[in-house]
Amino acid sequence: MGDLIGDVVESELYYVPAREFDRVRQLNAPRPKLVSLYADMARLNALYMIARAGSGHIGSSFSSLDILSHLYLTEMNRDAGDIFFSSKGHDAPALYAVLIAQGVLPEQKLHGLRRLGGLPGHPDIGTPGLVTNTGSLGMGISKAKGMLFANRVTGKGGRVFVLTGDGELQEGQIWESLVSAANHRVGNLTVIVDHNKFQSDFSVERTSSLGDLDAKFRAFGWHVARIDGHDTELLAETFKALEKITDQPKVVIADTVKGKGVSFMEGTSIDSDVEMFRFHSGAPKADEYLRAVEEIEARISSQLAGLHATAVEVVRVDKPVVAPAPAGQVKLFPAYTEALLVEAEKRPELVALDADLALDMGLLPFGEKFPDRYLECGIAEQDMVSQAGGMALRGLLPVVHSFSCFLSTRPNEQIYNNATEDSRIVYVGGLSGVLPAGPGHSHQSVREISALGGIPNLVMVEPCCPEEVAPLLRWCLDYQGPSFLRMISIPYVTSAKLPADYVPQSGRGVTLRSGGDATIVTSGLLMTAEALRAAELLAQRGIAAGVVAHPWLNRADPEFVLDLAARAPVLITLDNHFRIGGQGQHLIAALAGSNPPRMPRCLSLGLEQCPPSGRNDEVLDVVGLDADRIAQRIAEFLGSGTRKL
Amino acid sequence: MGDLIGDVVESELYYVPAREFDRVRQLNAPRPKLVSLYADMARLNALYMIARAGSGHIGSSFSSLDILSHLYLTEMNRDAGDIFFSSKGHDAPALYAVLIAQGVLPEQKLHGLRRLGGLPGHPDIGTPGLVTNTGSLGMGISKAKGMLFANRVTGKGGRVFVLTGDGELQEGQIWESLVSAANHRVGNLTVIVDHNKFQSDFSVERTSSLGDLDAKFRAFGWHVARIDGHDTELLAETFKALEKITDQPKVVIADTVKGKGVSFMEGTSIDSDVEMFRFHSGAPKADEYLRAVEEIEARISSQLAGLHATAVEVVRVDKPVVAPAPAGQVKLFPAYTEALLVEAEKRPELVALDADLALDMGLLPFGEKFPDRYLECGIAEQDMVSQAGGMALRGLLPVVHSFSCFLSTRPNEQIYNNATEDSRIVYVGGLSGVLPAGPGHSHQSVREISALGGIPNLVMVEPCCPEEVAPLLRWCLDYQGPSFLRMISIPYVTSAKLPADYVPQSGRGVTLRSGGDATIVTSGLLMTAEALRAAELLAQRGIAAGVVAHPWLNRADPEFVLDLAARAPVLITLDNHFRIGGQGQHLIAALAGSNPPRMPRCLSLGLEQCPPSGRNDEVLDVVGLDADRIAQRIAEFLGSGTRKL
Repeated sequence: MGDLIGDVVESELYYVPAREFDRVRQLNAPRPKLVSLYADMARLNALYMIARAGSGHIGSSFSSLDILSHLYLTEMNRDAGDIFFSSKGHDAPALYAVLIAQGVLPEQKLHGLRRLGGLPGHPDIGTPGLVTNTGSLGMGISKAKGMLFANRVTGKGGRVFVLTGDGELQEGQIWESLVSAANHRVGNLTVIVDHNKFQSDFSVERTSSLGDLDAKFRAFGWHVARIDGHDTELLAETFKALEKITDQPKVVIADTVKGKGVSFMEGTSIDSDVEMFRFHSGAPKADEYLRAVEEIEARISSQLAGLHATAVEVVRVDKPVVAPAPAGQVKLFPAYTEALLVEAEKRPELVALDADLALDMGLLPFGEKFPDRYLECGIAEQDMVSQAGGMALRGLLPVVHSFSCFLSTRPNEQIYNNATEDSRIVYVGGLSGVLPAGPGHSHQSVREISALGGIPNLVMVEPCCPEEVAPLLRWCLDYQGPSFLRMISIPYVTSAKLPADYVPQSGRGVTLRSGGDATIVTSGLLMTAEALRAAELLAQRGIAAGVVAHPWLNRADPEFVLDLAARAPVLITLDNHFRIGGQGQHLIAALAGSNPPRMPRCLSLGLEQCPPSGRNDEVLDVVGLDADRIAQRIAEFLGSGTRKL
Repeated sequence: MGDLIGDVVESELYYVPAREFDRVRQLNAPRPKLVSLYADMARLNALYMIARAGSGHIGSSFSSLDILSHLYLTEMNRDAGDIFFSSKGHDAPALYAVLIAQGVLPEQKLHGLRRLGGLPGHPDIGTPGLVTNTGSLGMGISKAKGMLFANRVTGKGGRVFVLTGDGELQEGQIWESLVSAANHRVGNLTVIVDHNKFQSDFSVERTSSLGDLDAKFRAFGWHVARIDGHDTELLAETFKALEKITDQPKVVIADTVKGKGVSFMEGTSIDSDVEMFRFHSGAPKADEYLRAVEEIEARISSQLAGLHATAVEVVRVDKPVVAPAPAGQVKLFPAYTEALLVEAEKRPELVALDADLALDMGLLPFGEKFPDRYLECGIAEQDMVSQAGGMALRGLLPVVHSFSCFLSTRPNEQIYNNATEDSRIVYVGGLSGVLPAGPGHSHQSVREISALGGIPNLVMVEPCCPEEVAPLLRWCLDYQGPSFLRMISIPYVTSAKLPADYVPQSGRGVTLRSGGDATIVTSGLLMTAEALRAAELLAQRGIAAGVVAHPWLNRADPEFVLDLAARAPVLITLDNHFRIGGQGQHLIAALAGSNPPRMPRCLSLGLEQCPPSGRNDEVLDVVGLDADRIAQRIAEFLGSGTRKL
C-alpha cells in the first residue's frame, strides 16, 4: 500500500476488494474505530465507481459514509427485519460500496455504476439490498411509515432507518410525513439527517435556510438527537441511547461535511456564503481523483498501522477508455441563458424562479444581472409554482425553472390552479427526456407531455436545435396563458437546420427533409437528430423518409396535420417520452379529428416502459430510439405494410 | 323583525339587504361591537345563499365570519393596496356575504351561489373582489408571498392577509411555504388560521392532530398570536399589536367554533372524539334553516337593541322550487363500499387509506369493520400515496382514496414513483368529472386521464353503472401493477345495462346499443347515460347510433378498436374530461396505430376549457355534453360529412 501513490498514472483506477472489508470487520479493535476505517475504505470504492462511471454524487456519498458504515456494521440487525434506505438517493455510490463490502451485492458490480445491467444512478429495487426506489426527494419518511404499518398488519418485526438530505427537508412532503409518525407514536422509526450544509448549487443557508432545525422536529413531536455525524463513537452512543425511546419517532440530525474525507472536496473548505460546492455531482478530474485516492489511502494506512494490522490491498485497474465526445455537439441551455437575458432586458416584468438548480438551468447569469427579479426557492416546487401564480396575478411575467421530472409532477395541481387563472407563466423544464440515462428513472423525464399536456390552455413546446430556443421562448413569453418549454440538458450532434427566417407558428412544424415514402414527425434536439440520421439510413435502403420538427408537444394545427397526412402514405411519430400520452398521440388524434381524405398508416415510436439507467448510447439502443433502431423499425413497418397490401 | 319567526314557512328564505349593512356600519358604537353585529348579519346571508343553492360550507363560513368582518371593517385599507383572500376557499359564502355587504359585489349575486353566471362554489378571480382562485388546499401562503414579491418589483405597497383552515395545515405545501417568508422577513404578510377544530369528516384531533401548533409556527420563524377568533375586541387589539412587527411574517391562530352562531350547528356541541360534524358541506334541512335563522335573528335584534338602533330589515323571498330528483337515480359509491368489504374479507392483505374524505369515499364501513387495516392520513395526499408505496413493498395491497382532482395531481410524482416499483396499488378517485358543477374548477376533476394515464403500467378504469363497480374493482385488485378506479359521486339515472355474465376484458368495451350510422364510445355513469339518451334522440331523427361503454380510460385492445372501426363510418368519442388528453385521444391513437383497412370519420367530444361552476343541468348544457347537445353535435357532424362527400 505504502508505495501506491508513487506508481499511479492518470489512466488507472483503484478499488478495495470485498475480502479486505471482510478482514477489517474481523480485526480486534473497538467497533467505532473499525467503522471509521470501513467508511474510508468504502470512500475509496465510491470514488472508484464515480470516476469509472464519469458521474455520480461524491459530496453526499462522502458525507454519509460514516453513518452508513455505523448502521451496517453496528446498528442494524437485518435478520430481525431491520431496514435501511436513503430517501435522498444521491448517495447511492456510498450505499453500493457498503452493500458490496457487506457481501449483499457482488463485487463485480463495483465496475457497473450507471451502466445498463449495473448499478443505477439512483436506488432501484431491482438491485439486491435496496428496498425502495428513491432519488425524487421527500418521499422516504412516508414510505418508511408504510413499511412499518405493513409490519404491524402482517405481524413482522424490525425497525426502519431512513437517511435524508438537509436540502431535502425543504420539500413539503417531509413535514407532511412527520405528523402521523408522532401521532401514532411510531417508535421503531429513526430518521438520520445527513446535514452536510450544501445542496445542488450553494449552501443550504444561502439557498433556503432551515432555521432552527432541532426546534422544528421537536415541534413536530419527534425526539431529536444532534451529533457530529463523523464521530463514530458518538454515533454508537447516540443510537444506543435511542433504543430506550420506544414511543416516539426519532431523528438524528448528523452534522456532517459534504465531501468528507478529502480535504479539497470538503464543504468546510469553501466560503458557504458565496461559493458553489463543486463536487455535488459529476466526476472528479483525473488529478483530483488521484489526489483524493492518495489522501484517503494515507488515512487508511495510518488507521491500520494504529491497529497493528497489515496494509489494505488495493486493486489497480486500467481506466476504461472513454470515446471522446463527438465533434460538433451543441447545447440548448447556453442559448436559453442568452435568450432569457435578452428578453429580460426588454421586459421589466419578467422574473425568474428556481428550485435549487440554478447552475443546471443556466440561471446564474440572470441571477447576477437581475438580482431583484430572481427568486431562489429551494427544493420546494409547489411553493415556487404557487408563488409564480401570485406574481402573475400582480402583473409579473414569471419564468419558473426546474428539471422536467419534478416540475411537471410535484406541483402538478399548482400549475393547473395557475392555469385556471389564465395566468401568463412560462415553465421551463430541463433534463427532459430519456437522456442522460445515468441518473435513472427518478430523473429521466418521459411523461411531462401527458402529465401537463391535458390542460387546455397550457401550450408545451420543445426546440430541435439551439437556434430554435430564442424564438420559442419569445413565443411563450408573448402567449397569453401558461406554457411549458421542454429542453434536454445533454450536448448532442444534430444536422437540424431551421430556415433563416424561422418564426414559430402555433401548431405547425418545420420540414427539415422531404421524402415521399414516409414522414417522421418529432421534436427536440435528441429525437430530431436521430430522426434525421434514421432518414439518412433509410435513404441508403432506398426509402425516402421526410422529417418534420414539430415543436408543439400538445397542439397541432388542423390544416397542418392534413398537409402532413397528404405527404406520404406512412406517418411516423417519434417521442422522447412514453409513447402513451406523448406528442405522437396528440398529433394522431388531431389528424383523425381533422378527418383527412386519406388516413396514412401510422406508427408511433416512443418509450414503452420505465427506462433503465445506463450509458446514453446503450439505453437509447435498448429502448429502440437511436437512429439504427428507428430506421430498422420504420423499414419493418413499411415492409409489413407492403406484405399486407 | 320581531315577528319574523312567527311567520316563517318552510318555503321562504330570508336575507339582509346591503343597505342594512351600510346603516349598521354608520352606527355610533365601539367598532368591535359593530363587527360582531355585522358578522351575524353576514351569517344570515351566507346561510341564505347556501340554503338557496342547496349546497355550500356552513361550518367554516360561520367560524370565519367574525375574522372576515374584522378584516373588512377595521383592519384592511384596500386603497393602500391591502389584499385579503381565503386559502381554504370553503368559506366562500361568508366572503361573498361580506363583499356584498361592502358593496364590492352587487346584492343581486346573493341569489346566485353555485349557479352559472353567479358565485362559484369556490373562489374564482372572475368574481369582483376575489384576487386568486382557491379551493385546493395549501396554496395560499405561497401565492401571498408571490403577490408581495410582485409588489416589491413593481414598487407597490400593501399588506396581504390570508385565511387558512386548520385541516389545511396538514398539507405539506403549507410548511414548504412558511420557510422563505421567515428567511426573507416578509413582515407585511399575516396568516390567520381559522382553527375551528373540525375538517371534512371528523375533528382535526381525531383525523390527524396538529400537535403543538404554536410551537410549530414559532419553530418555522413566524411570530405567533393565539386568540379567540370570535372575540372581536381581542381581534382588534391583536391586529393592532401585530402592526409593530414588521420584520417577521405573522400568524394569528384564531380558536374558533365550526358552525359558530347557531347553537345546534356548533362543533363544540358534539363529541369530537367520535362524532362527525354534520354541517361541513351540503345544505341545512328546512327546519334546521328556520331554527338557525331564528337564533341568529334574535341575537341581531338584541345587539341592535343594546345600541338603541332600530331593528334590521330582513327580506323574505320564496324559496325557488327545486325539481324533485328524477326517479331511478343510481349511485356508484354504495356499490363500491359493498364490493370493497367483500374483497377485504377475501384478501387479508387489502388495506384502505383515506385523506379526510372517508364519508364521501364510502369508507366508514370499512374503517369500522377492519380498523387495523384502515389508515386515515388527513389532508396529506403525498404522504398517503408514498405510505401506500411502502406498504405495497412489504406485501400489502393498498387501496388509496381521495377525490380525483386531488389524487391525480397532488401526489402525481409519488404515484409515478410507486409505479416504477411495479407495485400493486389501487387508487380510487371520487368526485370525478365535470359534475357536480357547484364546487367549481378546483373540485371538477377533468384531467386525471391525462395527468396519470401516461404511466405505462398504470391502468385507469371507470364503471358505467353500479353493477360494473365490483367487477372493475376485482380486476384492479388482481392486476399486477398500479390501477386507478375513477368514479363520479353524484346519483344519476341511466339505462345502461351490462350483460348478466359480464367480466371486464382488458381494453375491450361492451356494446350497449347497436347502430350502423355512428358508434359512440364512452365510459362512466354520467357519459354513458347521456350517450344512450343521445342515441335515442338520434334514432328519432332516423340516425342509428351505437353506444359502447369502454371502461378502459387509457388502454384499448387493438383487435377491439379494429372491430369498432368496422362497425360504422363514424366514430364518436365522448369524454367526461378535457377532450385533450382524454379517453377519446387514447382510443383514436390506438385505432390509428392499429392501421384499420378503413378509418372512420372521427369526432371527439369533451371539455374544451376549464368548466364553470353552476347547477349540474346548466353546466352540462353549456359545455355541450348533455344528451340534447351531444345528439345535435353528432347530427351536425354526420350532416357535414354528407355535404363534404
